[in-house]
Amino acid sequence: MRTIIECVANISEGRNRASIDQIAAAVRGVPGLRLLDVSSDASHNRSVLTFVGDAAALRAGVGALFEAAVARIDLRGHRGEHPRMGAVDVVPFIPIRGSSMDDCVALSREIGAEVAHRFGIPVYLYEESASSEARRNLAEVRKGQFEGFAEKMKDPRWKPDFGPPEPHRSAGAVAMGARAFLIAYNINLGTKELAIAERIAKAIRHVSGGFRYVKAMRVELADRGIVQVSINMTNFKKTPLHRVFECVRSEAARHGVAIVGSEIVGLTPAEALYAAAEHYLRLEGFSPEQVLETKLLEE
Amino acid sequence: MRTIIECVANISEGRNRASIDQIAAAVRGVPGLRLLDVSSDASHNRSVLTFVGDAAALRAGVGALFEAAVARIDLRGHRGEHPRMGAVDVVPFIPIRGSSMDDCVALSREIGAEVAHRFGIPVYLYEESASSEARRNLAEVRKGQFEGFAEKMKDPRWKPDFGPPEPHRSAGAVAMGARAFLIAYNINLGTKELAIAERIAKAIRHVSGGFRYVKAMRVELADRGIVQVSINMTNFKKTPLHRVFECVRSEAARHGVAIVGSEIVGLTPAEALYAAAEHYLRLEGFSPEQVLETKLLEE
Repeated sequence: MRTIIECVANISEGRNRASIDQIAAAVRGVPGLRLLDVSSDASHNRSVLTFVGDAAALRAGVGALFEAAVARIDLRGHRGEHPRMGAVDVVPFIPIRGSSMDDCVALSREIGAEVAHRFGIPVYLYEESASSEARRNLAEVRKGQFEGFAEKMKDPRWKPDFGPPEPHRSAGAVAMGARAFLIAYNINLGTKELAIAERIAKAIRHVSGGFRYVKAMRVELADRGIVQVSINMTNFKKTPLHRVFECVRSEAARHGVAIVGSEIVGLTPAEALYAAAEHYLRLEGFSPEQVLETKLLEE
Repeated sequence: MRTIIECVANISEGRNRASIDQIAAAVRGVPGLRLLDVSSDASHNRSVLTFVGDAAALRAGVGALFEAAVARIDLRGHRGEHPRMGAVDVVPFIPIRGSSMDDCVALSREIGAEVAHRFGIPVYLYEESASSEARRNLAEVRKGQFEGFAEKMKDPRWKPDFGPPEPHRSAGAVAMGARAFLIAYNINLGTKELAIAERIAKAIRHVSGGFRYVKAMRVELADRGIVQVSINMTNFKKTPLHRVFECVRSEAARHGVAIVGSEIVGLTPAEALYAAAEHYLRLEGFSPEQVLETKLLEE
């Protein structure tokens, strides 16, 4: 597989196992596509389908996903803790290999236009694909949620990028866009002091002066008697894991606290780990082409 | 590819391009096999073919390799700087994924018996496959080289594991065996003092009291005005890169010298880099299954 683009589609069904399985099966059946993971959360009433392929496979896969999901999910009766505006709620495209962010922006526009036309669903481009700064942030786009969307769309500022001027009656609206791979990364501190985790989270997160591609919050791990800085690394190529780790180490040391461990939750591209090895081992002239498994992925 | 075994076959031809290409083509043509690299050295008059596959593909690939090489390489006129005893000189089998060292030992015995029978070439099992401690070391097995092998084989201690009691007249004899992946890893020191590189090499290498799976020597990088500790990591799972790096760092610091960089020469399994990232980031509960590319290799 020379070109790998990842799609992490969020659908508003996390309880009806039969529906989730049927929607997953529709995606899995697309040639050239690999469905890597399906995670469902009943309290959120939401599932996340992770699949990869090249541009053509993703186009077919997203089409199959909408066809199956729109037929099975009706937001008019939907309850769940997670905010949502559509049956298929968010569809991000993430460049992994052999594809640039620009390629993924173009792909999101292409697929967005197609979905709007084929299913009559309004499509909002977000993140790197956003047509204006106001639409970059998913939370802003989704504000009002399904129940408030007909009203929201009356405002000309919320005219969709593609599709009809009102929400689909059962499937709402959808956000699509290109974004960098997100790594969920937690760093555990050898202290019970939640205030220290809070100070460190504040030190590293973008919004309060930290790293450009870091979102962070404090978490208490009561069962282990320690605290955690819970991090979303929104662009590990520009803000790498090891730089954040070293910053947290330094900030923690200032309080006499050590890092007892860290964890990657879910998936990571190999490159994020290569970068850490490269940094600490001070590797010169390293290329992922030197990794045996990289060669095996090239066909 | 669920099972990946690597074979790094050394053949005694590094000058005749047409012969090398034909031998490589024979290997490349085997279904299920991936020829990753062909490196030739004219002064050594030797080429290294790196290919991977499962047990069945390797069996067919090694057969094709011998068929092509025995027809094209005649050691009776062979000159080169590198010691050699056979047209196909060494055939190691290296477990990469989904295959154990024991599996590779069994495979080497199977393929060794087959090659001996089919081509009339004496086969010596070495490294992990060795039938006695004396045969574990390749240099011992190869001692005498092609020219001295008929004489060497008169000694009953050098009866081959498989095949005839004398060398093949043009193709000599071959060493086959299972071994761990070898990573060529160099660490560069910010000094011109070759004596410091020598002391550090001595500190880390197995033979003089260092790490079990490390071979090391000093090298002068005259063009850069620095020295290097040049290392063969003969089992990165048991003696990992980062442990050797940290030991070299500490030994160098004792002389007031810093590590200015390190380099991996040629290929490395991804796992060796994951292990370094895991160590330095203090990752808890990390599994290669969390790496996106690992999932893509599973089929």
